Amino acid sequence: MSQDPLVIFTPSGKRGRFPVGTPVLTAARKLGVDLDSVCGGRGICSKCQVTPAYGDFPKHGVSVAQDALSDWNAVEQRYDDKRGLKQGRRLGCQATIRADVVIDVPAESQVHRQVVRKAAQIRAMVMDPATRAVYVEVEEPDMHAPTGDFERLKSALSAQWGVPTVMADLPVLRKLQPTLRKGNWTATVVLFQDHKGAPPRILDIYPGFDDGRLFGLAIDLGSTTIAAHLTDLRNGDVLASSGLMNPQIRFGEDLMSRVSYAMMNPGGDVEMTRAVREALNTLAAEIAAEAQIDPLRIMEVVFVCNPVMHHLLLGIDPVELGQAPFALATSDSVTLGTAELELDAINPAGRAYILPCIAGHVGADAAAVALSEDPGARDDLTLVVDVGTNAEILLGNATRVLACSSPTGPAFEGAQISSGQRAAPGAIERVEIDPVTKDPRFRIIGCELWSDDPGFADATAAIGITGICGSGIIEAVAEMRMAGLLDPSGLIGSAEQTGTARCIAQGRTHAYVLHDGTEADGPLIAVTQGDIRAIQLAKSALYAGARLLMDEMGVDQVDRVVLAGAFGAHISPKHAMVLGMIPDAPLDAVSSAGNAAGTGARIALCSTAMRARIERMVRQITKVETAIEPRFQEHFVAANALPHATAPFATLRGVVDLPEVSFNTAGGDGGRKRRRSRAAT
Amino acid sequence: MSQDPLVIFTPSGKRGRFPVGTPVLTAARKLGVDLDSVCGGRGICSKCQVTPAYGDFPKHGVSVAQDALSDWNAVEQRYDDKRGLKQGRRLGCQATIRADVVIDVPAESQVHRQVVRKAAQIRAMVMDPATRAVYVEVEEPDMHAPTGDFERLKSALSAQWGVPTVMADLPVLRKLQPTLRKGNWTATVVLFQDHKGAPPRILDIYPGFDDGRLFGLAIDLGSTTIAAHLTDLRNGDVLASSGLMNPQIRFGEDLMSRVSYAMMNPGGDVEMTRAVREALNTLAAEIAAEAQIDPLRIMEVVFVCNPVMHHLLLGIDPVELGQAPFALATSDSVTLGTAELELDAINPAGRAYILPCIAGHVGADAAAVALSEDPGARDDLTLVVDVGTNAEILLGNATRVLACSSPTGPAFEGAQISSGQRAAPGAIERVEIDPVTKDPRFRIIGCELWSDDPGFADATAAIGITGICGSGIIEAVAEMRMAGLLDPSGLIGSAEQTGTARCIAQGRTHAYVLHDGTEADGPLIAVTQGDIRAIQLAKSALYAGARLLMDEMGVDQVDRVVLAGAFGAHISPKHAMVLGMIPDAPLDAVSSAGNAAGTGARIALCSTAMRARIERMVRQITKVETAIEPRFQEHFVAANALPHATAPFATLRGVVDLPEVSFNTAGGDGGRKRRRSRAAT
Repeated sequence: MSQDPLVIFTPSGKRGRFPVGTPVLTAARKLGVDLDSVCGGRGICSKCQVTPAYGDFPKHGVSVAQDALSDWNAVEQRYDDKRGLKQGRRLGCQATIRADVVIDVPAESQVHRQVVRKAAQIRAMVMDPATRAVYVEVEEPDMHAPTGDFERLKSALSAQWGVPTVMADLPVLRKLQPTLRKGNWTATVVLFQDHKGAPPRILDIYPGFDDGRLFGLAIDLGSTTIAAHLTDLRNGDVLASSGLMNPQIRFGEDLMSRVSYAMMNPGGDVEMTRAVREALNTLAAEIAAEAQIDPLRIMEVVFVCNPVMHHLLLGIDPVELGQAPFALATSDSVTLGTAELELDAINPAGRAYILPCIAGHVGADAAAVALSEDPGARDDLTLVVDVGTNAEILLGNATRVLACSSPTGPAFEGAQISSGQRAAPGAIERVEIDPVTKDPRFRIIGCELWSDDPGFADATAAIGITGICGSGIIEAVAEMRMAGLLDPSGLIGSAEQTGTARCIAQGRTHAYVLHDGTEADGPLIAVTQGDIRAIQLAKSALYAGARLLMDEMGVDQVDRVVLAGAFGAHISPKHAMVLGMIPDAPLDAVSSAGNAAGTGARIALCSTAMRARIERMVRQITKVETAIEPRFQEHFVAANALPHATAPFATLRGVVDLPEVSFNTAGGDGGRKRRRSRAAT
Repeated sequence: MSQDPLVIFTPSGKRGRFPVGTPVLTAARKLGVDLDSVCGGRGICSKCQVTPAYGDFPKHGVSVAQDALSDWNAVEQRYDDKRGLKQGRRLGCQATIRADVVIDVPAESQVHRQVVRKAAQIRAMVMDPATRAVYVEVEEPDMHAPTGDFERLKSALSAQWGVPTVMADLPVLRKLQPTLRKGNWTATVVLFQDHKGAPPRILDIYPGFDDGRLFGLAIDLGSTTIAAHLTDLRNGDVLASSGLMNPQIRFGEDLMSRVSYAMMNPGGDVEMTRAVREALNTLAAEIAAEAQIDPLRIMEVVFVCNPVMHHLLLGIDPVELGQAPFALATSDSVTLGTAELELDAINPAGRAYILPCIAGHVGADAAAVALSEDPGARDDLTLVVDVGTNAEILLGNATRVLACSSPTGPAFEGAQISSGQRAAPGAIERVEIDPVTKDPRFRIIGCELWSDDPGFADATAAIGITGICGSGIIEAVAEMRMAGLLDPSGLIGSAEQTGTARCIAQGRTHAYVLHDGTEADGPLIAVTQGDIRAIQLAKSALYAGARLLMDEMGVDQVDRVVLAGAFGAHISPKHAMVLGMIPDAPLDAVSSAGNAAGTGARIALCSTAMRARIERMVRQITKVETAIEPRFQEHFVAANALPHATAPFATLRGVVDLPEVSFNTAGGDGGRKRRRSRAAT
């Protein structure tokens, strides 16, 4: 085979073939990958750092050899000597392509790296934190009645605060003596006491009286995005929220790809564990810097995550989660030292709490959504859908709560979409298409104006128009369907069929151009047939999961739908329903809960009673396993159309107009059509 | 100053001046330092590896610059590339001397490296260990009632063993899934349950039924020697005992030198902590190899040590222990994960227990002696003396127990003695001097014959006669006094004064030649005036400590004396009493307890009830601080003579003959004489 090597960039999923010898930076630019460069490829700025991934990537259909890139060269060596390159990094302007390769663009090498979407929801927290600060006066040592400084501190805590017995980790013992002397035998002690009955533990100690400002991180560790909320442990206030892409993306976009990577590459799970822990340290340091607080004041971290991320965070091989019966290594909540997770960016005596998992495919993130939205507390039947790379779905009322998860894939987060990107400034987030002219208008993150408003070009000049994010692609596809550019099977019509030159041919299919792109404001942004298919797969999975729970509950409709997750906070219920993402419900019964998993993490961070509560709740939730349920497959196939065939689209009738069009032709999409037909029987 | 650089070797304390450019190996050979070499200095065998120490060494009176040795050369680089040299090591045959330097000879570079003296005492142990193995049958996972493998294991432990709740560290969670599957849902679980009320903890898990052989290390972490006993946790049997020199010796021979090193060299405490932890890992690996067991089966480590070693082991700066009021960071017993001590040679989930300290100068080693010898359990008044670089002294009966420690220095362990060496094959351990001929005969470790027995030369040819160990120097000094070679002030007479040519002149003082030394069997071995002075200082400190406790107790004599420690096990009570090391007592009331601190460590390793017991005992012991007690100084000065002036030597009269000699001359030793006179008033 004389084909050029295949280059795949993560997290964008953009791919292309390039001649041997092409610099990585050149390939990235040609594909429109968001890879920074300031020095113009001279190996000085190091902004174009990339991390090549090696091994087998069945998901991408490639196997990457160790010599897939050119050898480490003198320019890289010089940079490494002078300023240091992280282990495994290459300079994109120096490394050239030799063979098929998967290249990860780390967050700091992306121009548009800020993740803004997983913001903290404003909510009053019940404050009952595990960690608090107390001031004590300690007796001075007496040579003639010798006891240790720690023993006299324990006596003081017992006498002055009624704390009967207390433990301390080595970092505290190490600083105890200078601290007590500096504070002239008074100190402020950081006490940790969880709800599991272990003795209280001293996490840190400060000389004299201290204002006692202590912080925790509530972390929503998603497959694609890691979001952290820096929280004041006195009042639950969120001081800063920040996010990073999960660097594990380079090992596989979705959970099962990562499990496969671990199975096929010895030590692959260790690599992934290392990658996510490094990212957590980066994130913790960034958020502390942003809030201008001392990272040593971060005492606790609460994690919510799906089971695969849960295992990889803990350093447990997730292989059992890839095959029936999907056994978790541990399902109960986990409390441990953050040092055991190698989180060295925060206080070395910090404590981590991971919410319990519900089942092998229904993780601590689903538990967090349950804690935040609590469908069991209401009489009406609520469907809670938390959309990420995996959707967590809860259905319940005061009588019974069911839970499942559904593998939607990363499309809803803008990944695996041709012009897709993370939700960040410059990303198209809202789309409208005129049903008559078939022309679009849109808004980008970072600007309040629509693209046809006067002054839009000036207002966005500095930001650029860089791609389309998850909520943008949802609206674009729904609007295309409403404007008659898509038929119910999901085919994009040709310019001839639709009457607009924006429908351009791409091989045997078509794409709809949202934005032409210019030198000034960025690349051409279009919705391709592949993008439509990715969204169809994602929304079918989401719908099928919800529908499966409804079957289990024995209902045909629900009273309320709560959309949660980064997606849930930003998309209009109307568009979601046009796509058939969620079961039919009155539009005014669909609400957004923002980042419910993140909110659940914050609730658990602020209250040990709430930790005990979710630990009880998960035992009462009925788990439904989608992976081996034949009805899930049936619902999945039947939900492929726009909107899906099994939902009669009743509540939207009269609200939106869906043109009856069909763009199918003999050679076009026969296979898929056959599948639909079978499912419809 | 045109003086040649001073080279000081540790742990031997041997020192000399050598011209710039002298290889370290050459200097070692000229000084009789035990530094191995097989290849003859060609940089191939690496047996002559040494560790230069840098910084200020007030004890040695030198300050060592970073460039005190020649630069790393090509031979060393080649060796490092091929086989790897440990961080900080140099090849003694390649590195040459440039300036004053302190050079440590690590254990593995010594020919006579085996420490044989701290053997385990045979004693029946009360078995009540914290760690035990249990076999369980675990339910298989059920997709429709999902729980974690760990949760089903907990249910099994509760149902089958009545263990209500249990924790597991990450290493166990990591191996849980493959282990349960390999054992076809049966497993042997290693459970740890201490006496402090924390929930039981799973330390490890094996597939199926396992013989459950688990081991612990009882470690006597001395200033000079580290001794470990590998103990079977089912029956208390000692499978192997092994020892290493404490590598911290290169930072200072005694405790206060190490505290000074930490105070004068920023980060010095961290260096010393790293050194001792590395040595512990080496020792654990060696002892496991010797006993041919899997080091991962070592689940627990119990430490006894003095307060300075205690703090340095835990990574706590010992600075407060160097000044009144000698406050410990913590005095209670410490239980923690061995991982926190970076003991990675054993099971990663291993647990460490450190016995409580009694006071700032009376450590967990003294507590271990109290646990082993238990003077409070008897009606007669017992004096327990545990001799190491620091002596731990207990005095008590059923009514009251007192404790102190006394800084004897390393002389009793053969360090700081001109021909001194660790107790190892080739070391002179027994000495007799004929009072008429003034000729000596001796025995060496590793041979049962005396030096004047027929066949001695053949029997020792392979071993060599390499130096004199602690018990040997004690006997030599006492025998010299009995033979009239020493006067009561400790002066060695000249050949003329003593009538033997073995008393040779060395500058203004004399030395007594024990062994001439030949090419075949080793160097000349003599007892110098400096050696006598070192022994006098050590024995005075020991006696003064014991005497101080007797004052406190209000007694002039004791019923029993128990000699413990490496020294205690090997010296005759008679020689100890001739030197005046211990208070006057009937010879048959003096017994040896062997390594009482090590025995105490083994008792605590085998029984949690005994851990609770020593924790109660230390609270009831009256602590006596020697460092600031004027009477200690008085006793110390008064005890300088051989035997000491304050002990009338009553019980030895008629048993041994002490000649009345005086070798003092005008210029000889006037200063010391004046001191004695003042003390005698």
